[in-house]
Amino acid sequence: MAAITDNVLRGVDHIAIAIRDVDRSLEYFRDRLGLVVVHDETLQAPPVRLVFLDAGNVQIQLVQPLGPGRVAAFLDERGEGLHHVCFRVDRIETSIAALGLLPDGEIFMGARGQPSCFLDDGSSGTVVELTEMRPRALTT
Amino acid sequence: MAAITDNVLRGVDHIAIAIRDVDRSLEYFRDRLGLVVVHDETLQAPPVRLVFLDAGNVQIQLVQPLGPGRVAAFLDERGEGLHHVCFRVDRIETSIAALGLLPDGEIFMGARGQPSCFLDDGSSGTVVELTEMRPRALTT
Repeated sequence: MAAITDNVLRGVDHIAIAIRDVDRSLEYFRDRLGLVVVHDETLQAPPVRLVFLDAGNVQIQLVQPLGPGRVAAFLDERGEGLHHVCFRVDRIETSIAALGLLPDGEIFMGARGQPSCFLDDGSSGTVVELTEMRPRALTT
Repeated sequence: MAAITDNVLRGVDHIAIAIRDVDRSLEYFRDRLGLVVVHDETLQAPPVRLVFLDAGNVQIQLVQPLGPGRVAAFLDERGEGLHHVCFRVDRIETSIAALGLLPDGEIFMGARGQPSCFLDDGSSGTVVELTEMRPRALTT
């Protein structure tokens, strides 16, 4: 598989699955499929619990909403299931500009202090997130 | 990230996105996001066109149905978007038995001659596929 080092996207960080109850979903993803939990964090904004499982070359993120927001609305409309794919980038602002895309909402502090941002879906039907691998203080 | 060499799953092979028109969707995933097409194949059973894009550590698979089936039903019900995540395994029959899961349908010859099988979703809401990396003749 060719590297994409010349491109803006630096590989997939995680595949996110919207679920209603992390602990119940772990009975399938951890106990049945055998994926190992490597991170468990609760964010205030957006209000979500995020549990990351190691799938070897990429992580699986279980997202449980703890209040109103993007994921709660998704669950109400479509039920549990795959929610978004998140790509790593060096820096969000310059990456969005280089891709010629529009952000969908503000840059926020994601899990592990990584600045993150959703993209306008470009009518693809697929929710795409970008995240920086290195934590930094957000000035916006 | 720890390897999962002791486990049945050997990493994520691809993330599949159900779409109605591959060529139109490539305007976003290839031309806008900059992902490179590495494989383009049409299967007879199931009747789908599969286009794979290299995301570095994992591939993105665009799935366009060419007849009735699992993906066409998904599009009718939910519209375009993330459809399933596919994990690599050494051999499907033994992997399903080791995981204690049930297949959802028969083992079929997927893209690149790789034997593949969907799993019963275990009420997770997430469609999971298994695929073998090495082509082999199917005896079932």
